Amino acid sequence: MADHEITLDFQRAGRIGFEEAIFSQGKTVEQLNEILNRARAHGAALLLTRLSPLQLEGLAAEYRGLIDYEPVSRTAFYGPLRPEAPSRIAIVAAGTSDAFVFREIARTARYYGHGSTQFIDVGVAGIWRLLEKVELIKQHPVVIVVAGMDAALPTVVGGLVGSVVIGVPTSNGYGVAAGGQPALNAILSSCAPGVTVLNIDNGYGAACAAIRVLHAIDRSSGAAR
Amino acid sequence: MADHEITLDFQRAGRIGFEEAIFSQGKTVEQLNEILNRARAHGAALLLTRLSPLQLEGLAAEYRGLIDYEPVSRTAFYGPLRPEAPSRIAIVAAGTSDAFVFREIARTARYYGHGSTQFIDVGVAGIWRLLEKVELIKQHPVVIVVAGMDAALPTVVGGLVGSVVIGVPTSNGYGVAAGGQPALNAILSSCAPGVTVLNIDNGYGAACAAIRVLHAIDRSSGAAR
Amino acid sequence: MADHEITLDFQRAGRIGFEEAIFSQGKTVEQLNEILNRARAHGAALLLTRLSPLQLEGLAAEYRGLIDYEPVSRTAFYGPLRPEAPSRIAIVAAGTSDAFVFREIARTARYYGHGSTQFIDVGVAGIWRLLEKVELIKQHPVVIVVAGMDAALPTVVGGLVGSVVIGVPTSNGYGVAAGGQPALNAILSSCAPGVTVLNIDNGYGAACAAIRVLHAIDRSSGAAR
Amino acid sequence: MADHEITLDFQRAGRIGFEEAIFSQGKTVEQLNEILNRARAHGAALLLTRLSPLQLEGLAAEYRGLIDYEPVSRTAFYGPLRPEAPSRIAIVAAGTSDAFVFREIARTARYYGHGSTQFIDVGVAGIWRLLEKVELIKQHPVVIVVAGMDAALPTVVGGLVGSVVIGVPTSNGYGVAAGGQPALNAILSSCAPGVTVLNIDNGYGAACAAIRVLHAIDRSSGAAR
Amino acid sequence: MADHEITLDFQRAGRIGFEEAIFSQGKTVEQLNEILNRARAHGAALLLTRLSPLQLEGLAAEYRGLIDYEPVSRTAFYGPLRPEAPSRIAIVAAGTSDAFVFREIARTARYYGHGSTQFIDVGVAGIWRLLEKVELIKQHPVVIVVAGMDAALPTVVGGLVGSVVIGVPTSNGYGVAAGGQPALNAILSSCAPGVTVLNIDNGYGAACAAIRVLHAIDRSSGAAR
Amino acid sequence: MADHEITLDFQRAGRIGFEEAIFSQGKTVEQLNEILNRARAHGAALLLTRLSPLQLEGLAAEYRGLIDYEPVSRTAFYGPLRPEAPSRIAIVAAGTSDAFVFREIARTARYYGHGSTQFIDVGVAGIWRLLEKVELIKQHPVVIVVAGMDAALPTVVGGLVGSVVIGVPTSNGYGVAAGGQPALNAILSSCAPGVTVLNIDNGYGAACAAIRVLHAIDRSSGAAR
Amino acid sequence: MADHEITLDFQRAGRIGFEEAIFSQGKTVEQLNEILNRARAHGAALLLTRLSPLQLEGLAAEYRGLIDYEPVSRTAFYGPLRPEAPSRIAIVAAGTSDAFVFREIARTARYYGHGSTQFIDVGVAGIWRLLEKVELIKQHPVVIVVAGMDAALPTVVGGLVGSVVIGVPTSNGYGVAAGGQPALNAILSSCAPGVTVLNIDNGYGAACAAIRVLHAIDRSSGAAR
Amino acid sequence: MADHEITLDFQRAGRIGFEEAIFSQGKTVEQLNEILNRARAHGAALLLTRLSPLQLEGLAAEYRGLIDYEPVSRTAFYGPLRPEAPSRIAIVAAGTSDAFVFREIARTARYYGHGSTQFIDVGVAGIWRLLEKVELIKQHPVVIVVAGMDAALPTVVGGLVGSVVIGVPTSNGYGVAAGGQPALNAILSSCAPGVTVLNIDNGYGAACAAIRVLHAIDRSSGAAR
Repeated sequence: MADHEITLDFQRAGRIGFEEAIFSQGKTVEQLNEILNRARAHGAALLLTRLSPLQLEGLAAEYRGLIDYEPVSRTAFYGPLRPEAPSRIAIVAAGTSDAFVFREIARTARYYGHGSTQFIDVGVAGIWRLLEKVELIKQHPVVIVVAGMDAALPTVVGGLVGSVVIGVPTSNGYGVAAGGQPALNAILSSCAPGVTVLNIDNGYGAACAAIRVLHAIDRSSGAAR
Repeated sequence: MADHEITLDFQRAGRIGFEEAIFSQGKTVEQLNEILNRARAHGAALLLTRLSPLQLEGLAAEYRGLIDYEPVSRTAFYGPLRPEAPSRIAIVAAGTSDAFVFREIARTARYYGHGSTQFIDVGVAGIWRLLEKVELIKQHPVVIVVAGMDAALPTVVGGLVGSVVIGVPTSNGYGVAAGGQPALNAILSSCAPGVTVLNIDNGYGAACAAIRVLHAIDRSSGAAR
Repeated sequence: MADHEITLDFQRAGRIGFEEAIFSQGKTVEQLNEILNRARAHGAALLLTRLSPLQLEGLAAEYRGLIDYEPVSRTAFYGPLRPEAPSRIAIVAAGTSDAFVFREIARTARYYGHGSTQFIDVGVAGIWRLLEKVELIKQHPVVIVVAGMDAALPTVVGGLVGSVVIGVPTSNGYGVAAGGQPALNAILSSCAPGVTVLNIDNGYGAACAAIRVLHAIDRSSGAAR
Repeated sequence: MADHEITLDFQRAGRIGFEEAIFSQGKTVEQLNEILNRARAHGAALLLTRLSPLQLEGLAAEYRGLIDYEPVSRTAFYGPLRPEAPSRIAIVAAGTSDAFVFREIARTARYYGHGSTQFIDVGVAGIWRLLEKVELIKQHPVVIVVAGMDAALPTVVGGLVGSVVIGVPTSNGYGVAAGGQPALNAILSSCAPGVTVLNIDNGYGAACAAIRVLHAIDRSSGAAR
Repeated sequence: MADHEITLDFQRAGRIGFEEAIFSQGKTVEQLNEILNRARAHGAALLLTRLSPLQLEGLAAEYRGLIDYEPVSRTAFYGPLRPEAPSRIAIVAAGTSDAFVFREIARTARYYGHGSTQFIDVGVAGIWRLLEKVELIKQHPVVIVVAGMDAALPTVVGGLVGSVVIGVPTSNGYGVAAGGQPALNAILSSCAPGVTVLNIDNGYGAACAAIRVLHAIDRSSGAAR
Repeated sequence: MADHEITLDFQRAGRIGFEEAIFSQGKTVEQLNEILNRARAHGAALLLTRLSPLQLEGLAAEYRGLIDYEPVSRTAFYGPLRPEAPSRIAIVAAGTSDAFVFREIARTARYYGHGSTQFIDVGVAGIWRLLEKVELIKQHPVVIVVAGMDAALPTVVGGLVGSVVIGVPTSNGYGVAAGGQPALNAILSSCAPGVTVLNIDNGYGAACAAIRVLHAIDRSSGAAR
Repeated sequence: MADHEITLDFQRAGRIGFEEAIFSQGKTVEQLNEILNRARAHGAALLLTRLSPLQLEGLAAEYRGLIDYEPVSRTAFYGPLRPEAPSRIAIVAAGTSDAFVFREIARTARYYGHGSTQFIDVGVAGIWRLLEKVELIKQHPVVIVVAGMDAALPTVVGGLVGSVVIGVPTSNGYGVAAGGQPALNAILSSCAPGVTVLNIDNGYGAACAAIRVLHAIDRSSGAAR
Repeated sequence: MADHEITLDFQRAGRIGFEEAIFSQGKTVEQLNEILNRARAHGAALLLTRLSPLQLEGLAAEYRGLIDYEPVSRTAFYGPLRPEAPSRIAIVAAGTSDAFVFREIARTARYYGHGSTQFIDVGVAGIWRLLEKVELIKQHPVVIVVAGMDAALPTVVGGLVGSVVIGVPTSNGYGVAAGGQPALNAILSSCAPGVTVLNIDNGYGAACAAIRVLHAIDRSSGAAR
């Protein structure tokens, strides 16, 4: 039944510079297997995001064995990875609890061939933790700041570094913070100029946004040479 | 018509330590004049909050002349002020635009006899502004932090000082920040432990909360002596 | 993997007077074990909040045996407790169903060395229950009022006692009250002056706010002596 | 143009016991004049609610002269009033500022021939004001409680009197209370059993609900005789 | 531990005419058993609402045997029931799926000694179902209308009958209707005059509101005789 | 400055069967004049929606004279109108106050050459008004139902007629109904099958949706002949 | 107990052209069995929507054997199907993950005797997928567009085809998109004229809306012949 | 009074590469004049955003004469402008009505020395308008997409170009779209990978985000050379 329900966009890399990833949430196991069939037929590798352990179990055994799965971020790599370029992305996270997001960022970047460097558990309630790492963070052209609850971190970072600063709100919290809406709104309202935002928990998108910046740098450097 | 519509709580100071103030928003001019009649009859002074210029104009001339009005905070003092005690309240505000709130705090404290010290325009997008004043701020047993937009300031302050920290979100903003809900939610979700909150723009309440703390200190010191 | 994901703030007590607690929600078992490793290495005790039974089970056996766990509040003490000071905190709760919050307050206060006294199930639908206890409640410099649903209790208490009054809305309810937003908004809108609020279900924060007040009292009494 | 846009429900009193009133908000002046033409043609009196001063001015002079208008409640009576029956409705209001609602209740009841008794400015932040009037309030079979902000009053009243208790939230407030949603939600979540609610500021509806109860009493008494 | 956490309001019937019921949601099994201990000690019967099957199982065997439990409404009667008076309450429900609410109404009324008559599955998408029952419905002094989704039924009923009309929105639905907020808002916005509302799914409260009306009728008839 | 800010879609009629209309809200007067310049240059007529009286005044005199403006619906016709086809659209509206919407529907239909028939002020609180017109309404292949507040009318109509039924919620209301969200949600949750919805107050869109249906009928009939 | 709780509307097809379907969500198993009893007694077939696997299992064995169940859409056909007419409905879906909705549309259409054609996984992030199918889509008088997340697809389709365009937002998503509210609001705000909307995930309603259009076409063609 | 209320951050350019701008909304005229005094004293130029015509009028005459004000975007330049670098920023806007935002972007970029190129009124309801400009748009390393209502444009652009894509939702709309929340949520939920977002109407921030990217390119090219 799933066959006519799938139309992969294999032309995406040609248009925008990186391949389509598979958003697994809500897909049936038959659909996921059919997607893997098509990838194999095209000789393509795949990144699957938001793949639940239950979905993983349902994949055909031949595919399951070829998949590198990380359960906290629920990301899966199918097929061989390309080499990893040196880190130009800093991932700064307010809390340890946000691992499901910052690992998704790092894994997405890695899938597309980019290294990254993590600065974790540096929330502003103990601001010394951030201040002593600012010089290291600054050396990256792109800084992704992951923060839940009150999400004060992106504003502080955005006021201290001149790099591209991308905020990712996270959903971990309770009371008014449950689901991450306050974190999202706090970053959207940031008093630091030019901090951009992605959807709550969208580590995948943040990595893609960072890669768009790196591509812009690379195209420009290439032109300059 | 307004006569039976008013029941002042002249017993409040006896119960909780400070007198009722008049929340003017939504009251008719007749009602406000009747309230002033009653205060005069009791020989009482009055603090009126959220008194619009239009309402002020509508007051009986005999009262208008006795009123000290500050238009940005829309606060009015009727009757003689008690003496001002030395400042034990720090008012820390992220932005100049929040004057309508931080002036209400200072004026309310003043009405009830308490001095205060202001540290304004020290938002965390330029965090040096706050850091160079932390030692001064710390010397106050109560610190009221006023912040709109992303309201990152209360968390940073709450992580740096051990005083009682009270956050007041403000409504000045636009887009998702219009009305102050994100600022409120950010303070409620603060990662700094024990930061309490009041309603958006509630400078009056913040001053009262501070005074409750000062009363607790004074009662305790008195008992200790 | 969890190793670089943790940066404990062991300097917090020096800055603000009490140590960092561990917010367990969303943390993996590996991360929690690594945190306990670090605490042991520093010879530190720990308070863990929002620790689920499942997380508890996942802790290393050596730690699990040293933990005092209360399942309704989901709080855990690791390591020896300091002595308990006489109660200066009244915990007033509208309903029996709010035990998951009022027990978190009492346990947090206890962890930091403070006793507390509970007045439970005194909601205003039967207001005699509160009125007959007002004199006892008044004797505490800090009163924490826990209330869900319509949260009318903090206003009534705030109008009857001059102590510091801190409201904690709770999430237990249904229909519009599910999640606790109406309780939160009711306390934020309280007609009693100077009642402050914490996030929904934030018993931990309420205890910390109370301790900030007690510290202010103690510092001031010390200075006065 | 307005002619075919109006279909008055002159049969309503026959069906449910009281006549249609005209909700004026959003109607053009031509439409209102046409409605008055029809009422005159039927020899009917009319109650107009939410009639703005600007709309009033736009009415034909012949009608304007026959109208009794109260500007705070924005209610208008057209035509002769029926006699007033003794009061069986208590109107209890937390604040003076809610006059635009409690006057609408009293005026609507009056239009339909029912007296009412007002107990105003008896909010629970000074609970003695309510307690000293409970015995008087109890004597009314229907008690309408008007309250904005945290709307704690309906719960306290509902726990003290056995009459029919109808809550009306009001929109006067600021911050989270602006617009009256917290007041509405607080009454909906009331811990006092059997307190019903109407839309924010719906004084007209509250009076109608009270009249339905009085009709039920009267029909039943009639049957009993 | 649960002992000091319970303060039953055994005086409620004296004040308002019916006894306190136990809202079971969120209570621990120990707390429920302690409540039953107290009821037994006072020789009181009890109504427990929102009692989950899991909570029921946890009750002491001695109590479980004396309980009449209905699982769809999750209501439990403990102790002997008083006799049932003839039905003066019509329960009109739009859909079969709302059984969890309309059965709670009927059971609550029954617990307090009142009969009721049900008119179920008469939603307005097939309006003949309602129209052919209007004459029967009208004979009841109180009509409770239960409706979810678009909740059009209370307005239609309110325009057809002169009885007291009480609306109860229900949470059963999906998309925007999930949770019942649109049903609640629709009834609050009803164009039929004097329709009152309770919280979403609050069948217990609706029955209590109906009983308040019946008491008002009875008190009045008594006076008339 | 406005010149490069406008790119009219003169190819729209070729693609979808009717021409682009100009949504005037938020446009400057210079922009509107430039749009009219372009229309004149193409010999095109124009429909302008949401044109405020202030914007109308700002138009160049040469254009203002050629415009047919209706102020309640804020619609303007520029240029000659095409002939009017017989009515196949019924516009059914719950209230007189919704004229700003139902006139926009009728005027939009008229601009595109379609007649329509209005059935106004037939809300379900007096359901006889609707029932006596059902046979007339049914004769139209498309029925647009305009309703604010509780928006019960579309469900009742959708259960009585087999035509295409399109609901338009309106923003006129107060309290929870202000802005029209409950009306929108009520129609979205309609228990009558196959009732579709447009944005609040979107009379223009409703007329366009009706025209799409009429085109489908006409294309099909053409094919059938 | 369920017997008086069911009032089927067997007259619906006579009024509006298609039979009532059973919305199973929230119904007890007894109620569903009773509904099937009644259908059998009338010799009627039935469509059951939102029937969970657990409910299916609970049906009487005699019914379960006669039911054609599709688990992703949770739809069930009871009784013999009528013949399928040629497809005049295009179902266009942005994503594979929306199968639970687009299959409900196709199955509902099929139940009522209408074929349909699917164009799946043609979201606008790879717009070539849609553009290459526009000519095929256009040949259908009704186009149902299913889209979650940002729901950009209905606007693009609505700007490219002149058919009746009906949007169905879906709930599959995360962060702000969880639950489908942004998709709903995006379609309601569509810049393409005359795109109508149904409730989130309401595939059943979309099929019914399409059938109303097809009936209008058929009645009109019939009249033309 | 305003003197101590201002603490300008003249060190910002040193930290992050561009100077502080003045957010004028909510500032009093005295505060704005004092800010200009300080700028003059430092010999600094200033960008003022969200400066209302009323505020402009209130500035000291000496300043007003030196200000270049654009009323639609409400932006003001004080002091001499630096030279304009060639355009590397594409500003793509769905509608003419969004001029208040896209002009703020262009003016902010210009103030900081960056040219930009505008592609306006290219919404996806007439997608040919965008498709014929894609090649031009692609040549810019940064593309800012401005869109209100359903905000479908950023997704389509993000799927067609590999540049950095930054979305800015706008508040112009009505019904559910009023205020811009659906546009914001649509961009946050974008199916095109790596599209980032700013607050509703935040043209200033979008320009700053673009400049951060250009700085990253320039720093990198500099390093490469």
